[in-house]
Amino acid sequence: MYDLLKEKVLNANLDLPLNNLVKLTWGNVSQVDRALNVFAIKPSGVPYEKLKKEDIVVCDLEGNIVEGNLNPSSDMKTHAYLYRNTEVGAVCHTHSTWATAYAQSGNDVEVYGTTHADSFYGSIPCARYLTAEEVEDDYELNTGKVIVETIKSKSIDYLSMPGILLHGHAPFTWGKDAKEAVTNSLILEEVCKMNILTKIIKTNPEKLPEHISEKHYQRKHGKNAYYGQNKKGEI
Amino acid sequence: MYDLLKEKVLNANLDLPLNNLVKLTWGNVSQVDRALNVFAIKPSGVPYEKLKKEDIVVCDLEGNIVEGNLNPSSDMKTHAYLYRNTEVGAVCHTHSTWATAYAQSGNDVEVYGTTHADSFYGSIPCARYLTAEEVEDDYELNTGKVIVETIKSKSIDYLSMPGILLHGHAPFTWGKDAKEAVTNSLILEEVCKMNILTKIIKTNPEKLPEHISEKHYQRKHGKNAYYGQNKKGEI
Amino acid sequence: MYDLLKEKVLNANLDLPLNNLVKLTWGNVSQVDRALNVFAIKPSGVPYEKLKKEDIVVCDLEGNIVEGNLNPSSDMKTHAYLYRNTEVGAVCHTHSTWATAYAQSGNDVEVYGTTHADSFYGSIPCARYLTAEEVEDDYELNTGKVIVETIKSKSIDYLSMPGILLHGHAPFTWGKDAKEAVTNSLILEEVCKMNILTKIIKTNPEKLPEHISEKHYQRKHGKNAYYGQNKKGEI
Amino acid sequence: MYDLLKEKVLNANLDLPLNNLVKLTWGNVSQVDRALNVFAIKPSGVPYEKLKKEDIVVCDLEGNIVEGNLNPSSDMKTHAYLYRNTEVGAVCHTHSTWATAYAQSGNDVEVYGTTHADSFYGSIPCARYLTAEEVEDDYELNTGKVIVETIKSKSIDYLSMPGILLHGHAPFTWGKDAKEAVTNSLILEEVCKMNILTKIIKTNPEKLPEHISEKHYQRKHGKNAYYGQNKKGEI
Repeated sequence: MYDLLKEKVLNANLDLPLNNLVKLTWGNVSQVDRALNVFAIKPSGVPYEKLKKEDIVVCDLEGNIVEGNLNPSSDMKTHAYLYRNTEVGAVCHTHSTWATAYAQSGNDVEVYGTTHADSFYGSIPCARYLTAEEVEDDYELNTGKVIVETIKSKSIDYLSMPGILLHGHAPFTWGKDAKEAVTNSLILEEVCKMNILTKIIKTNPEKLPEHISEKHYQRKHGKNAYYGQNKKGEI
Repeated sequence: MYDLLKEKVLNANLDLPLNNLVKLTWGNVSQVDRALNVFAIKPSGVPYEKLKKEDIVVCDLEGNIVEGNLNPSSDMKTHAYLYRNTEVGAVCHTHSTWATAYAQSGNDVEVYGTTHADSFYGSIPCARYLTAEEVEDDYELNTGKVIVETIKSKSIDYLSMPGILLHGHAPFTWGKDAKEAVTNSLILEEVCKMNILTKIIKTNPEKLPEHISEKHYQRKHGKNAYYGQNKKGEI
Repeated sequence: MYDLLKEKVLNANLDLPLNNLVKLTWGNVSQVDRALNVFAIKPSGVPYEKLKKEDIVVCDLEGNIVEGNLNPSSDMKTHAYLYRNTEVGAVCHTHSTWATAYAQSGNDVEVYGTTHADSFYGSIPCARYLTAEEVEDDYELNTGKVIVETIKSKSIDYLSMPGILLHGHAPFTWGKDAKEAVTNSLILEEVCKMNILTKIIKTNPEKLPEHISEKHYQRKHGKNAYYGQNKKGEI
Repeated sequence: MYDLLKEKVLNANLDLPLNNLVKLTWGNVSQVDRALNVFAIKPSGVPYEKLKKEDIVVCDLEGNIVEGNLNPSSDMKTHAYLYRNTEVGAVCHTHSTWATAYAQSGNDVEVYGTTHADSFYGSIPCARYLTAEEVEDDYELNTGKVIVETIKSKSIDYLSMPGILLHGHAPFTWGKDAKEAVTNSLILEEVCKMNILTKIIKTNPEKLPEHISEKHYQRKHGKNAYYGQNKKGEI
């Protein structure tokens, strides 16, 4: 029943080490099935090279295990909260090096170039630290809440801003499916790398003029998008 | 009829990921045939690992498709403009990491060493942002215009300055053929990396004395060049 | 008799180049057998690609060779001192690039993010230079003493702080076995890389609030740890 | 007659791309035979992947070609000058990224850690720019003269200081044979990388106390060296 979903989630998780987005077991990808009201997610602490389809855990949107013999990722409740409160189709969390360094700085990722503007519409926010109460109460659930709170406070939508940093933690990205969520992690990692290198040349680089960032985002994702082979939003 | 041209363009595009100059589909190479008045270019958004010779698009110098079933690169008009207005034989555009970071700073790439001087004659210019009007009017065409305007304003010739940065965007390079254009992208990437690393040691490094940069460029590309096996300009 | 111990030590040493933690012969791993009162260690100066199980040297805790035809690592006395004076099960020493750069700065590795907090409980100390007398007297033995002195002066325990930097030298890490000691070297290298990159964005990044670092360490290593598949302390 | 010498030089040149010390054709290694008064060197501009033993050029110490159909490296006269005026057995020149960045800064490579002290005895000098006259007169010969002048002015010997940077150019290293010269390039590259990364943490890192650098150099290369398997000076 969940076979295809689990296979997609398996493959997306295997793409993390292939794309140098993780060390050890530092990342997890999930994808939701809105019809069945479940999502499939990586089990906790299992090395990618040993991961098999039957290890993938299926949960309902409240976070109850529906199928699977292993514990789901310790970040499972964050994924579940995002599925309950947003329209995203998949979630990816990694500790990829350059994006995590950015998250450690607490800075938003400002738009310095078209590589960023092609895929993320505006500054990528860095969400605040969780409070002691939020950590004590339910850390992973409240991580989801802080992500949603941050995105809402900026009136941005999830499709055009497919990721976020958490201060002192690392990035979360999302997309219509697990493959796209991983691609967005890869893009975020590269954009953070470019920005950090830019700052070696110029501490405060100029932000890309809005008419250019608008153009780049729209030529790829707008209603008259003309990038790619007529598949809107292709990356 | 365009078979050999398409094969060269295919191979040059495949060299981009092999040389770590691109992520995803972030780069495109074209080559012109001056006798036939056409150029061949990568199709838009097609992953390199799926790219086949029959996917390569052939356009005339006005940018009309002459052969091919796919959309050409969204940057096609920039390539076409360069073929109409310069003598270059091939054009390569990437978002290679270090050169793109440099482009994001808006700085010219000054000559700090002989690695630069061996292949680029003088500072590599960073062209200005396009204006809102230029973006609205015809973004990719005007990108070509700004490149040509920048090179002309500095009275430098295309053969000795085989590349440029666009502020907030990324590099374009060129050469006598597609292979050489890609090699110039690789050199530009490495020179930008060396310069950024130099700036960690010294914020404002000394420029290489002109008698040394002149010597290095001429021993490789001058009329009495003696680098390589008697093939002038070999890299 | 020492066959299994030597095999584990061989494999852990071979993991060093596989994980990009060493160049040339710049690293060594050992593991102790507390029942037999011996430890097995890499021989000095032997390239990893030529290393065989029979090359691994077995020493007693005073540093006398018990089995083996080759000289043990020149750092052997440091390992022996650590086995005599702490409860660690294995020791790993490398000159991994980013951690060694950190050691050259003389700074402690402060906690800027959860990647650090997941595995190292608090700032990772950078031990002082050895004095001229300590170097002259018995350099490698006194290196062990300075490590122990530093850890003791901070009242931290070896299990929750599985590594240290030596000012002007490089990292040492430890663990319950050789595999874990190498994993801790890999984590330390990545944490140092993230911190250095963070400092490009912000010279003095904020330290991670203690309630978050506490949470992250405890969810992986505390008595109610819930990371992984019910194996406490799994990384 | 020169067969073994050419094979050693071939293999050492092939080690350059294997160790990520070169892009394109940016490096050359030679080795001298003091009995025969000749040295073998890479031909100019030949890609490493096409290099064969019969391409290696043999020259006498005045720089005249003794055997070989190709032009020797354009840096041949620098190598020849070093063989005539020093006791080195082999010379390696690359544009390896981090060492070249250091050379572009014009700074000496100061001793910040034992990785440096293990192999280079003291600060690695950065030689001055050549004057216009020196460039015009005989660039490659005078490059050799400036190297020798710099080493002499510091009263250091070639065995304990197996390399140098040239301001605005790149590193030269040497050793008893071609293999060792390449190893010294690899060490220099890594030391420069570590130092640059250290400077991100601390602009002016403390120099390693002399009693520690002395100890490290001597335990590897001194008359009572005890690193390795009783082969003095093994790296």
